[in-house]
Amino acid sequence: MPYFDAASAAPLHPVAREALLASLDEGWADPARLYREGRRARLLLDAAREAAAEAVGCRPDELVFTPSGTQAVHTGVSGALAARQRAGRRLLYSAVEHSCVLHAAEVHEAAGGSRTELAVDRTGRVAPGEVAAALGPDTALVALQSANHEVGTAQPVEEVAALCREAAVPLLVDAAQSLPWGPVPGAWSLLTASAHKWGGPPGVGLLAVRKGTRFAPQGPRDERESGRSAGFENIPAVVAAAASLRALRAGPETGDEAARLRRLVDRIRTRVPELVPDVEVVGDPVHRLPHLVTFSCLYVDGEALLHELDRAGFSVSSGSSCTSSTLTPSHVLRAMGVLSEGNVRVSLPYGTAEADVERFLEVLPRVVRAVRERLGVPAAEAAESAESAGAGQTGGAGETAGAAGPGDAAGPAGLVVDALGKRCPVPVIELAKVIGEVPVGQTVTVLSDDEAARQDIPAWCAMRDQEYVGERAAERGAAYVVRRRA
Amino acid sequence: MPYFDAASAAPLHPVAREALLASLDEGWADPARLYREGRRARLLLDAAREAAAEAVGCRPDELVFTPSGTQAVHTGVSGALAARQRAGRRLLYSAVEHSCVLHAAEVHEAAGGSRTELAVDRTGRVAPGEVAAALGPDTALVALQSANHEVGTAQPVEEVAALCREAAVPLLVDAAQSLPWGPVPGAWSLLTASAHKWGGPPGVGLLAVRKGTRFAPQGPRDERESGRSAGFENIPAVVAAAASLRALRAGPETGDEAARLRRLVDRIRTRVPELVPDVEVVGDPVHRLPHLVTFSCLYVDGEALLHELDRAGFSVSSGSSCTSSTLTPSHVLRAMGVLSEGNVRVSLPYGTAEADVERFLEVLPRVVRAVRERLGVPAAEAAESAESAGAGQTGGAGETAGAAGPGDAAGPAGLVVDALGKRCPVPVIELAKVIGEVPVGQTVTVLSDDEAARQDIPAWCAMRDQEYVGERAAERGAAYVVRRRA
Repeated sequence: MPYFDAASAAPLHPVAREALLASLDEGWADPARLYREGRRARLLLDAAREAAAEAVGCRPDELVFTPSGTQAVHTGVSGALAARQRAGRRLLYSAVEHSCVLHAAEVHEAAGGSRTELAVDRTGRVAPGEVAAALGPDTALVALQSANHEVGTAQPVEEVAALCREAAVPLLVDAAQSLPWGPVPGAWSLLTASAHKWGGPPGVGLLAVRKGTRFAPQGPRDERESGRSAGFENIPAVVAAAASLRALRAGPETGDEAARLRRLVDRIRTRVPELVPDVEVVGDPVHRLPHLVTFSCLYVDGEALLHELDRAGFSVSSGSSCTSSTLTPSHVLRAMGVLSEGNVRVSLPYGTAEADVERFLEVLPRVVRAVRERLGVPAAEAAESAESAGAGQTGGAGETAGAAGPGDAAGPAGLVVDALGKRCPVPVIELAKVIGEVPVGQTVTVLSDDEAARQDIPAWCAMRDQEYVGERAAERGAAYVVRRRA
Repeated sequence: MPYFDAASAAPLHPVAREALLASLDEGWADPARLYREGRRARLLLDAAREAAAEAVGCRPDELVFTPSGTQAVHTGVSGALAARQRAGRRLLYSAVEHSCVLHAAEVHEAAGGSRTELAVDRTGRVAPGEVAAALGPDTALVALQSANHEVGTAQPVEEVAALCREAAVPLLVDAAQSLPWGPVPGAWSLLTASAHKWGGPPGVGLLAVRKGTRFAPQGPRDERESGRSAGFENIPAVVAAAASLRALRAGPETGDEAARLRRLVDRIRTRVPELVPDVEVVGDPVHRLPHLVTFSCLYVDGEALLHELDRAGFSVSSGSSCTSSTLTPSHVLRAMGVLSEGNVRVSLPYGTAEADVERFLEVLPRVVRAVRERLGVPAAEAAESAESAGAGQTGGAGETAGAAGPGDAAGPAGLVVDALGKRCPVPVIELAKVIGEVPVGQTVTVLSDDEAARQDIPAWCAMRDQEYVGERAAERGAAYVVRRRA
């Protein structure tokens, strides 16, 4: 049963398991105590810190262990911002950071700070020029991930670190996804990571703060971990985390394994669009994590797709709105301006068998077809891809020719599709069904109160070479206007 | 090699170990995911929550897991205070709470809140009347531990909970030390605990917030654990924590084991003062934790004592100033007004052998004698105990008859002992050496810049039936004045 969601959590590495077992017996005592059990625990903790620091590329006294990667980010962001309060109160961060960075930014803003989201291109990459332009005298901190957790795109961390250094602004790098594959280069000031992403146990995050970086930990004080992480040290887990990270890095096979997974991902990137019509593979094809690929399938309900893939034995995740508790699509896909419906993220764990990937490629087209059929997507529309958007339309249910409300009065006359109350991917399916009836050069208006429509209607236009005119408020939800090109 | 510091951390319970191993394979995935590995992890997490809630005596949806007991307290205090901000901003807490409560109170005060420490009696107990008197219209929260971590004294939680309920003020109970022995009775509103205190793994705390208690989690938001504990769930550790707590509670032997340890502690409480001269056993002899006893040895350096006990094979802890990184004595002993020098806390883990306790009673007198001899305490002084304080004095080094500085000018003329620059227990030893030279009814002044002297000179007076006159500022440190009674 292939598990293809290593970016969420990787199964425990055998070395982590072994180290955990050994240190349960040796490392349970309080390392602050002077007696032998305490001294033994302290030795284990010190050794783990040295090993982790070496893998990160920092000094042991620059690194502390936290209870999670999330807490490492929260602590790192708040501690760096507080220490720079006099210099400035603006936090810059890319629009595709992990949600824990976004949430830390919200708290900063609520406390009177300011924040600026840096836009990304369609691959999810921040342009160093954008960072340079945004760096101002009030900038307290820049946060940039090493590589994106949803689409795999690597960020230009080294260049951004150089820009930050020049501006004397600290850079915090969330390295949660990339650290298993190698250290983060460049003159970063703070770095965070999470052990369960590399096959370490849950319960361990890393926070490195390089010497010379001002840092003022927030929250109630606690002597442990240099005052940067409160609570009794979880030494068995810390030892297991460090041992497995060292094992990943020390073996000559790590580079080989990265290359092998990269080839498997390349195969998915190439084959999926050949096998499944109307698919958008997103993220940078070259500058990316070795093991991760994301694609979106037009006219597909993400939750149904995940469910069918699970039934077929494949565990993957999704950034589609219907798979999130908030019913909004992934902020990463939104920032990239790409399709969010029918979204699938495949992240291969260390040691993934090639045969499993081949079987996935075998199963996927059938599963997507089944989901589309159930949604009433005409087979012809799905099969003909971008060639001819108007062909094969049937008079679908759901379109109306009536007025859409007061907001529509000033708009162009034309076809109106009422998709109110309908969830992703239905609004886009309804649009596709009627586009053939729209005279070339004329518009069709889709009324929708589904958050995903805001992202997926423009994305559909880009894929179908239709003109996205824009959005305006409507009595309920919004009215999205599309002009037929051909 | 007997480990007698269960109150710091208990070795892993066999049930915890077994549950941890099993759930490392079953519970590593993200419980928020819809695929089978995620669903399996979710089932484990739900089952652990049910088991832990049953042991705590609350509903499963009232309980969340945190990365430590410390974080449970920090989150509980800040969340309860924030939710009650309109009602009031005063936090009441006992002077003997765990340092994590004190640190949370400091942060509250720094943010504009107010705090009141409730005094305790010489056994370390808060009087419910004191709580009733302190409860005011601006009280936002009361924090009271179920039993003290340093001296074992049980607090009147049930009575205080009733008072709080009457005043419509929530009560947070830190149950870290008592939860292994039974649920906390009464109408508390919030409760915290820590798994490594009962033989669960490190990395797991509990926070229960009873329905109807207003709660507003602070810090960056996070969907996990009802928004009350950020970061990826540590399911294997949580499962192990819950399983071991249930095992402790389910076995009919828990009550027996508590009774057995209580008898062993009674034996220590009785025998230590018989075997070692000049010892003060502190804490309530009856209303207390079953497994914990604390005593202080006059004229003894706590660090040396711990070191010698460790060499003899016994792991214990101490609240003496010389064993803390801040060189101040334990705030618990200070609040109780008891001796802090030569302090030893013995906390017996589940299953402690009676023979180990007997061997401890054999070793202790020899070790204390050796430490006292090294410090130059006259054997006679040490042996004669409180009978005759003046006997056996030699003209000790360190006393001077000179003026102690401007502050002394207004004071009574008399002997002055200059113990400036000397650390605990030397100032008290110097005082004991000269008391025989002081005419009855006259005073002796001890100059000391050691924090422990503030606590230990009055405590010595109480033990020796001498009159402690008071303290006044001196050019360096403070001047402590003692009047000879007999």
